[in-house]
Amino acid sequence: MKIGKATVPRTAISTSDEHRIVVRGEDLCKDLIGKISFTDYFHLLVTGSRPSAAATAVLDATLVAIAEHGLVPSVQAARMTLAAAPDAMQGAVAAGILGCGSVILGASETAGRLFVEIQERMRSVSDIDAAALAVLREYRAAKKAIPGYGHPLHKERDPRVAQLFSVAREHGANLDFIAIADAVERQMPEAVGKALKLNVSAAIPAVLLGIGFPLQALKGVPILARTAGLIAHLNEELTQSIGFALSYQATRELVYDGELPAGESAESP
Amino acid sequence: MKIGKATVPRTAISTSDEHRIVVRGEDLCKDLIGKISFTDYFHLLVTGSRPSAAATAVLDATLVAIAEHGLVPSVQAARMTLAAAPDAMQGAVAAGILGCGSVILGASETAGRLFVEIQERMRSVSDIDAAALAVLREYRAAKKAIPGYGHPLHKERDPRVAQLFSVAREHGANLDFIAIADAVERQMPEAVGKALKLNVSAAIPAVLLGIGFPLQALKGVPILARTAGLIAHLNEELTQSIGFALSYQATRELVYDGELPAGESAESP
Amino acid sequence: MKIGKATVPRTAISTSDEHRIVVRGEDLCKDLIGKISFTDYFHLLVTGSRPSAAATAVLDATLVAIAEHGLVPSVQAARMTLAAAPDAMQGAVAAGILGCGSVILGASETAGRLFVEIQERMRSVSDIDAAALAVLREYRAAKKAIPGYGHPLHKERDPRVAQLFSVAREHGANLDFIAIADAVERQMPEAVGKALKLNVSAAIPAVLLGIGFPLQALKGVPILARTAGLIAHLNEELTQSIGFALSYQATRELVYDGELPAGESAESP
Amino acid sequence: MKIGKATVPRTAISTSDEHRIVVRGEDLCKDLIGKISFTDYFHLLVTGSRPSAAATAVLDATLVAIAEHGLVPSVQAARMTLAAAPDAMQGAVAAGILGCGSVILGASETAGRLFVEIQERMRSVSDIDAAALAVLREYRAAKKAIPGYGHPLHKERDPRVAQLFSVAREHGANLDFIAIADAVERQMPEAVGKALKLNVSAAIPAVLLGIGFPLQALKGVPILARTAGLIAHLNEELTQSIGFALSYQATRELVYDGELPAGESAESP
Repeated sequence: MKIGKATVPRTAISTSDEHRIVVRGEDLCKDLIGKISFTDYFHLLVTGSRPSAAATAVLDATLVAIAEHGLVPSVQAARMTLAAAPDAMQGAVAAGILGCGSVILGASETAGRLFVEIQERMRSVSDIDAAALAVLREYRAAKKAIPGYGHPLHKERDPRVAQLFSVAREHGANLDFIAIADAVERQMPEAVGKALKLNVSAAIPAVLLGIGFPLQALKGVPILARTAGLIAHLNEELTQSIGFALSYQATRELVYDGELPAGESAESP
Repeated sequence: MKIGKATVPRTAISTSDEHRIVVRGEDLCKDLIGKISFTDYFHLLVTGSRPSAAATAVLDATLVAIAEHGLVPSVQAARMTLAAAPDAMQGAVAAGILGCGSVILGASETAGRLFVEIQERMRSVSDIDAAALAVLREYRAAKKAIPGYGHPLHKERDPRVAQLFSVAREHGANLDFIAIADAVERQMPEAVGKALKLNVSAAIPAVLLGIGFPLQALKGVPILARTAGLIAHLNEELTQSIGFALSYQATRELVYDGELPAGESAESP
Repeated sequence: MKIGKATVPRTAISTSDEHRIVVRGEDLCKDLIGKISFTDYFHLLVTGSRPSAAATAVLDATLVAIAEHGLVPSVQAARMTLAAAPDAMQGAVAAGILGCGSVILGASETAGRLFVEIQERMRSVSDIDAAALAVLREYRAAKKAIPGYGHPLHKERDPRVAQLFSVAREHGANLDFIAIADAVERQMPEAVGKALKLNVSAAIPAVLLGIGFPLQALKGVPILARTAGLIAHLNEELTQSIGFALSYQATRELVYDGELPAGESAESP
Repeated sequence: MKIGKATVPRTAISTSDEHRIVVRGEDLCKDLIGKISFTDYFHLLVTGSRPSAAATAVLDATLVAIAEHGLVPSVQAARMTLAAAPDAMQGAVAAGILGCGSVILGASETAGRLFVEIQERMRSVSDIDAAALAVLREYRAAKKAIPGYGHPLHKERDPRVAQLFSVAREHGANLDFIAIADAVERQMPEAVGKALKLNVSAAIPAVLLGIGFPLQALKGVPILARTAGLIAHLNEELTQSIGFALSYQATRELVYDGELPAGESAESP
């Protein structure tokens, strides 16, 4: 069945024949294996060009910042999945990645969209704080959440934020989006009535947009990073399984508030 | 419900409070972000210790070697999934990762198990070729596939193999498992009647076991690597969608060999 | 880490002890196994009550209508995944389900939201066609797609639509949302300039909302239905594998439009 | 890239053109929608033929028996995933299905294989108990787990077992595999030293093999059934979210047994 217009598939990423594999215009065996780091290769794969030194530093910093934060829900989901299906590590990784959604790690992408919108607004509203406030007010009017501010654990600024910004500064990356992210933080009390601080999900797009990483691929950074953390947890799970223990703990105080068969009292189950 | 014995979950990977995040005994913000590459961090996360220079080189080389090989089935599955659900990049990545199974990328792990078995055999059968042949014959007797040898496209040795081995040699990594992998290749004609050459799925465990990467986490390397390639393809898919074109092409010559409703001839549908 | 307010988990679906399992107030062994069809049980699980005869008929009809439509992209993705990972059927099913997104099967839910919006509009705009047109124009103004109309293969009304509507009529289900769906179809030329016909993704919510199936669970119906079709395809795949053949066919005309290493001509790869 | 021999994909499940959709030799709109239950359609899809009345009863009973058992690990994984990615119900369902692995629901298939092996052994060892014991001993010698016996909650026979067997008996289904399953239970003390009782994962293949359901598709039954339960839980999750509460509870007693940065004491984090 034909869906949509394009019928001839095209790609600019890779081609190969029996003798060599070309990736983004380079020979995989001659130019890349042993000669480029995985981080730089990720940049080359996604953008089509090798990163500058500043871009490498920033991309590495974001991947390291977001890869691991303990037994967060997606790690729990992955470990429970591996406990149930220990032969299929790929399934457990997939279950963990499926938790990179709009509420949790997807904020990296939506915060990036917010910053780009503010940057565009600055063509007409030159003051950065005024532009930020104007866009924030539109989000509020449209009942859209402001992504990337506030954190359940880190009430002050998430400690990873300062570190990411400092990496970008040290390596001379473009800082325009950091300035926008800071302006949003300053305007939060005015816009939403609460002093919500920048969290790591806003810091990531702020520094990545500054190295030219594509907006629409932003979500790929936390996904790749978390995959590394998930593999570490799944390796630990294979040695010391806690998937079912997590599940047991999770329901120790579970309340059943549904109905019971006729004639049974609430105590019986 | 309590499944299994352990009821108190434990982990040695990460802990955090409001002020800092500890990963494998290091302070994420002070010691890691901006100070360690993503590859080294992956090694630290999985093994608990920072890699040697040789280990970094080998781990980078394997991640680069396996990340991308064009529109392989798992990439097609991911691009079709994104075309159908463009808002959920995590779902498309997950669909792609689910294709890292026993037949395709999982051979990295099973080939690693084969090599470890041959190494153990060498305690009693000191000649490496004899040990390899003995284990291969047991695989054949038990009707188990020999993982990591032969490739649909690369009839000669996969060009990535030599490059990976050369990275390991250059950086002074332990070469014991490369020797075993070579011995298996030499014994393939005797053992299976065909001169199947080492492919990248055997080269990866051969070099990774040489840097002490844990056997049970081997499958994590192609999974992490492919995630990078998948994100590049999904970024391309968002700009120039071919997911449905691939699906259309795939079925242009499709044969329906089932039944038709009574009274209809084969030509009618 | 505590995310959000609720800390004590609650559920009204099921509770159990060593001697019995209660589901939605009924004893699973005494009242349900052997005494209720899977379709009725699905209704009970989701809504908390057993369906009327009309609801059973409509729910069965929608599940049958949407379960199978040949080698659509999500089925291809699932079969490619099983070919690569034949030991993990759950992974292949998951890969197929991940293609139930906003573009493909998710239209059932979004079309349902459209119909509910039109129904609410009818409080102020009593004429059904006027209410439909008003809401359609708002969708256009907001650049939102109109879900559930048009089909790549069925240029006339999808043949499943009439059949679903006729089942609802025969069994005396509420027909209000069918009337709304028809009104939308009548207004499509005026609203979007094309006579796009109702497809199965609009017919499904039109009949399901008429039996009181919850709007937010609508997407569950195509997901459950497709799972049945996926299992049939995966069973066929285990006997007669075509996953890799599909992948091969898909790329026979693939065009590489990226760069080549310096000194190579376009013909060489 | 061509992997494997087959290059022309074939299927016997479905074909369609602009005017009609054929499934397993029947016209979807004329013969199936509104005229067949979802359970019977599932049977038709998988096996190619409509079920007998006994087969319908048994298939419905197994789907009902296994669809729901409260907040089991896979349901928790799915609810955590939806809480993190509420826009992508398909992702949360997929995460839940990925927990249908070898340890949890996959036992349906492996128990089915055990029963078929015992049936084949009965050609040479006519006594059913002797055949069961012989095969069980081979499993033990090969260090293979005996699937489908024992349950963390139901120390007596799982209450669903008797009910499933009684449905098969009432409807006159073939009872050969029930007899084999009972024989295995009788021989468990002799074979493994513990009186492990039949659980639902052994009862399901015992009754399904009796209606001719294909061995290799057995795992599809718990997968389809659980999908129904997952959708009910995800519908509840959208109304009353507990995904993050489950995750919070799961880690309240979490012990970090890894290292701390130099100079910090165990109490500080």
